[in-house]
Parts: sequence; C-alpha cells; structure tokens
Amino acid sequence: MKPVNIGIIGFGTIGTGAVRILQKDSTLLERKSGRPLLLKSVAELNFTQKDGIDSSKFIVTDDALQIINDPEIDIIIELIGGVNPAKSFIETALKNGKHVITANKELIAKHGAELFAIAKENSVNLNFEASTGGGIPIINAMTSSLAANSILKMYGILNGTTNYILTKMANEPVTFEAVLADAQKLGFAEADPSSDVDGHDIAYKLCILSSIAFNHFFDINDIYREGIRNISQRDIEIAKDYKMVIKMLAIAVADSESDDVELRVHPVMLPVTHPMASVNGSFNAVFVKGDNVDEAMFYGRGAGELPTASAVIGDTVEIARNIDSKRTSMALNFGTSHKNVVPMGEISSNFYLRFSVVDKPGVLAEISKIFGNNDVSIKMVKQAETGEDTAELNIMTHRVKEKKIQKAVEEIKMLKTVNELSSLLRMSL
Amino acid sequence: MKPVNIGIIGFGTIGTGAVRILQKDSTLLERKSGRPLLLKSVAELNFTQKDGIDSSKFIVTDDALQIINDPEIDIIIELIGGVNPAKSFIETALKNGKHVITANKELIAKHGAELFAIAKENSVNLNFEASTGGGIPIINAMTSSLAANSILKMYGILNGTTNYILTKMANEPVTFEAVLADAQKLGFAEADPSSDVDGHDIAYKLCILSSIAFNHFFDINDIYREGIRNISQRDIEIAKDYKMVIKMLAIAVADSESDDVELRVHPVMLPVTHPMASVNGSFNAVFVKGDNVDEAMFYGRGAGELPTASAVIGDTVEIARNIDSKRTSMALNFGTSHKNVVPMGEISSNFYLRFSVVDKPGVLAEISKIFGNNDVSIKMVKQAETGEDTAELNIMTHRVKEKKIQKAVEEIKMLKTVNELSSLLRMSL
Repeated sequence: MKPVNIGIIGFGTIGTGAVRILQKDSTLLERKSGRPLLLKSVAELNFTQKDGIDSSKFIVTDDALQIINDPEIDIIIELIGGVNPAKSFIETALKNGKHVITANKELIAKHGAELFAIAKENSVNLNFEASTGGGIPIINAMTSSLAANSILKMYGILNGTTNYILTKMANEPVTFEAVLADAQKLGFAEADPSSDVDGHDIAYKLCILSSIAFNHFFDINDIYREGIRNISQRDIEIAKDYKMVIKMLAIAVADSESDDVELRVHPVMLPVTHPMASVNGSFNAVFVKGDNVDEAMFYGRGAGELPTASAVIGDTVEIARNIDSKRTSMALNFGTSHKNVVPMGEISSNFYLRFSVVDKPGVLAEISKIFGNNDVSIKMVKQAETGEDTAELNIMTHRVKEKKIQKAVEEIKMLKTVNELSSLLRMSL
Repeated sequence: MKPVNIGIIGFGTIGTGAVRILQKDSTLLERKSGRPLLLKSVAELNFTQKDGIDSSKFIVTDDALQIINDPEIDIIIELIGGVNPAKSFIETALKNGKHVITANKELIAKHGAELFAIAKENSVNLNFEASTGGGIPIINAMTSSLAANSILKMYGILNGTTNYILTKMANEPVTFEAVLADAQKLGFAEADPSSDVDGHDIAYKLCILSSIAFNHFFDINDIYREGIRNISQRDIEIAKDYKMVIKMLAIAVADSESDDVELRVHPVMLPVTHPMASVNGSFNAVFVKGDNVDEAMFYGRGAGELPTASAVIGDTVEIARNIDSKRTSMALNFGTSHKNVVPMGEISSNFYLRFSVVDKPGVLAEISKIFGNNDVSIKMVKQAETGEDTAELNIMTHRVKEKKIQKAVEEIKMLKTVNELSSLLRMSL
C-alpha cells in the first residue's frame, strides 16, 4: 500500500512524542491505518537531538513552508502552539489540500470557525483531539460516539497544573505560593504561571468543547474566568469539614428550554462523593451529561509527551484510514446553531463565604440584614474566634444569583465591623 | 439528501430506545449524519405499543427476513440478543450488502471472527459499540481514539447487576441473597441471575474488549470466571478495615515480553483510592493502560433503554456519515496477531483468605507450615475468636501463583483443626 506522508511542524514536547510513536510503533500503526505512516519531514527553528529518536530517518528543516508546500506530504501536524504563525501555516496547508492535525487550543478556540470553513472548502480534515484533555479522547467522544445526544452539562478538570496544586494543598498543609514554586522547580508549571493558575488555558479548552457540544462557535471572551490564586489552606480545611474538596473546573450548562448556555471557569467546592472529586494530581477528566447517554466520564493524562502524542497519532490514523474516501471529519459540520452565553450575574449557585469580622455582638445581625435585603437566604453560619478582637464568619447560602451575592458582598465589605472578605467560592454545579 | 433507511430487529428495551431516539432527535441526527435517518421497519414477534413511540411512522412486521431482504434498507440494527437466530439474520444482512449494528455481546464474543470476515468480504460495516459497557464509548475508544497504543492492561466493571449488589452490600448490612431478591423484585436482576452473578455476561464483554485490544479473537472458554455468590458481609467488613472495597472485575493483562495475555473475571479487593473503587451502583467503567496514553478511564451507564440506544444510534450516525465512501470499520481489521491465554494457575496475585478453625494453640503453626511448603509467603495474619471453640483466621499473602495457593488451601482444608475455608479473594490487579 502507498504510504501516507507526514510532516510535523514543531519538535517540542508533543512533537518529540509524535515522532517517537511514529518510529517505535510503525507496525501497529500500519495495521490500524491500512497503510504505512511515513514521517517525511520535521520543521523546527532550533532542532536538538532527542534520546531514542533516529533523526536520520526524516528531513529536518527550519522552514515550515518547505513542508507545507511539499506536494508529497498528505498530513501536516502542527505542534508549535499560539496563534501566529500557526494560523497562517494551517491555512496554507489546508488550501494546499493537506489534512491538518493540531494540538493548538488557543488557535482552535479563537479561530476554529474560520479554519474549519477553509478545511471544508478544500475537502480536507482538521483534527484537534490533542487540543483538549491531552490523551483523553473527549473530542472524538463528543463528535462521534455521543452523536446521538444533546449535551445538557459538561464539567471538566482540564488543567494538570492547577489540579496538581489543589491536590497537593488538600494533602499537605502548604500554601498556594509554596506549591506553585515547587511545581515550577519540577517543571510542572511555567515560569509565568498565569495561563494555568488564572484559568486561560482551561477557558480555551472549554471554548472548544462547548463549541462542539452546542454546535455554536463561542467567543473566548464570553467565558467567565476566575483562577485559584486566592484558595487558602483555611478554605481547604473548611471544605474537608463539610466532606467537600475544592477543584478548578470548566463548566458548561445548557438550558433545555432556550438557547442559553452557561460557560464558566472557576474553583468549585464539590462533595467528595462526586466522580470529579477523586480526579487527583495531574490527571484530567471530563464529565458529560447527555439527554440519552445520561452521565458519562472520561479520565486520563491531560498532558505529557506520550499521552498527548497518543491523541495526535490517533487523529493521524483516523485520517490515514479514510484518506482515499474524501470523507471530511464530523467536526467540520458544527457551528450551525445559535446559542447565547448567560451573563455571569444571572447564574445561580450555592455560595460559601468567609469573612474576617470584629468580634463583637451585632455583627452577624448587620450582615444577615444585608443578605436578606438582597434576597440571599443563609443556609448555615459558623463563627470562630481567630484573634483577640477578630472572628471568622463562615456562611453557606441557598441557591442565589451571582449578581445578588456580589451586591450583598459589596455592601457587607463597607461595614465598619467587617475587616475583609477572605473567600467566596461557588459550591454547586 | 437521500435518507439512510433503517430496519430494526427486536423491539425490547434497547429497540424501543433506538426507535425513541430516531423519532425524537431526527433533526440532530440529520445534522450529525449529513442526511436524514429514516426508520422504515421494525421486526418483532410480539409487538406491543410503547408510550411516546409513534408506530404509524414505520412498518411493523413479525418477519425479520422481510427487513433483511428489503432492498431499500441500508442499515440493519439487530437487538434480539442470543446466538440464534441473530447469527443467521446478521449473516444474511451482511451478504445482502447491508451495514449491521448489534448490541449482541454473546454473538460477537462467540462468532465475531466469522461475522467480521463476512462483513469485510461484502465491504460493509458491523458495528457493536452497545455490546459492551452500554452507553460508554469504549469500543470506539479502543478501535479509533487509542489506535496509537499497545494496550497493556484493562480492568472493567462491566455488569450493572453485580456492581449494584456489591455496592448495596458495602453500604448496608445485607446478605447477597437478600440484595439479589430485592434487585429481582425491582427488575434490575433476571429471574435466573446466573448470567450476571456468575460472570458469564462479563466474560462475553471481556472477550470482545480483549479481542480488539490484543488483535486476536479469544475463545470465551479460555476466560477464567468466578462469580460473587460467595461474597459475604464479613468479607466486606474486613475489606473496609483495610480501606478496601470488593468489586467484580473483568481483567486483561498483556505481557509486554511475550504473546501471553491474562484474561479473568472474578471479584477483587481494591484499595478505596483506586479509580475503579468509586464506580458504584449500576454504573460501569473501563480502565485502560496503553503504552503511550498511560492510564485512562471511561465511565457511564452500562445498561438502560436510552444509554444503550445512545451507543446504537452513535454507530448508526457513524455508518450513515460514511455510507457513500465504502469505508469499512477499523474493527474489521483485527484478529491478525496470535496471543496465548495464560492458564489461571500461572497467574500471580496477592490473596486474602479467611478460615474458620478450631480455637486451640498450634493451628496457626500447622497452617503456616503448609503455606511455607508451598512457597506462599504470609504478609499478615489476624485471629479472632468467633465461638466457644472456633476462631476466625484472616490471612493476607504476598504475591504468589494461583496454583500454589490452591494447592496449599487444599492441604489446609484437610487439617483436623480447620473447619472451613470461608473466603478466598484476590487482592491485586
């Protein structure tokens, strides 16, 4: 059988993994694809030799266009990340009639609609399993296996760094800053951790998953986003008292009566019995509720050289198997509905709040009054002395709209008897 | 677009679910398939009207061959179960050039090789996602998403009835018999429960999963099988003491150095921290370890009208999307390797054993001696008085071959001081 020729752009972690799998598993891949997968070229600006890779078996170039314009190449795998120049590389490749596989979450989240249209026009595939959830085949599940479902809800643990930090903080009495510094030393976290700890990375992934699930290309800017920098040991301790854990989640909830969709990324207090509560360390998971399949969960490695490359090469096999049939991927048929993103203020949750207050009679009455005036109904209050003159007030509320709790909190913070709002966490999904 | 015509054989639980989804979700399915999915006919010997199904929209017949030989029908969905007459129905349909979808685990486990060959000869698909794990897309994951992996291990909770019984016994001080009787009353368990509680159902599913995972059609008779009838409250209590739970598992382990594969179905004591330990009630899950993806888990409803029909209609959409491309499913390309099933006696585990013994000095010495003679190394012993003259001996062993422990147990049972072996459970995976 004629081989399928492959060009890879980017020889970083995932690129190295992809080359490694193509080299070590060639027999398996040929059987699965129905033809040999031949790595012809790798483009990388600063190519360095890696252990276990035989670089004499492929062409190394620093010019990506040499691969993109090579008429012999059938499939381009883009693994450089970021919008530029990845976007123009992919556009040119698609227009040159090449199938493209990418792990680029930012690019698909921001410009997916445009790129899928170009792929469709040129009757080629644009696959992106590795962009979300690393080795977890969640994109394939959403586009293919769960095709007979309207998606009602999705919750994802989609970032290994934040899940590692929160797991570590739950197991040991360490601060966020200390765990982050450790993770940076070990190479699990970036020098600039903002993309992870402030939720940008998760928002891209949620944008991609929801766009497929709800058949509408969402704007990344419409996703509410809040990071984990403010999570303290005290919050984790209190969560434990209530048999709960704190997890950083991506959340999407569709209203079955309208076109409204909630999209948000923030930490949540979850009961320890929830299937997502035991997803620990650098593992990722996606929990899906469909109208027919009911609840399903997909769990695995969200990052790492081989797990992510497993998804990239899974896409490669899928394309190679169908390369003669001119069939284009199901993902290209989405984006035909219209959905509205619900403003964060309109979303209802149960809340957990922690205030530092002056330790004197009447404070709780003042706070309760403000909550009452804002229609916030209190479920539970616990007070603990924390210093000579200060007390800690832990409050859990019944379900209430975000805008009401925020307004109440603003008013409470103005009280002379209130030192600070130490914590505000959403408790329900 | 020309519609895809569908015929369904069997209007039981899953058949009703399939018809329900085809009727209520026709717009969604048309978008996903690229063309309308039209249910033309349903064959059922004893057709009875079901709530919410508009049976004026399709032909009802008691003659399956009328559908199988209908030249207008593109896809046959077989949902009657069992080997006969399902096998001849499917053979005829494939030879008539129709794509076939089935949820029939017994048929695929016993005659998959033969049926896939007929499908391949006739360039049609034979899809079977619903045969294993209900709504969980594990077949698609194994054949497609995880294509770039050699599978090293699989553990499955693949039977809702046994998982329901064991979960109930773990939560309440009830006997196996009482929970089974309850489950039968509620319709969760069959009047003849053997297929579930003795592990036959699970063995079919393990046979299917391993055949795909290891590229060799296994013989169902080569799978070691042990049910849950002997699990007692005392076993569950002791497991709890050791922070373990008892789960009924399907296990497949490949030896990376040879062609040997372990295949077995039996209850296992698992640490509560294992991802499978929190799969409760009627939920199913499959845990997979691949050489590249590392660990992954798939979780969801293993049975039920709509979850299982979700898998059937997912297969239908997949076939409908590709119906013009004459592409045949990846599952048809397996069975080209040769694997050996390791005899149960050669498999090593840690064991938990519980004996009822005569309460007098020297008993433990006698037992220990027999273990020692058989190379069984004891990790822990606990003794408890249970009656005037009897004691309970709980023993956990280090890793040892099954044949050695079985030989030791036979010898121990001959001792005059030993009343009975109350329990023997494997503890490691």
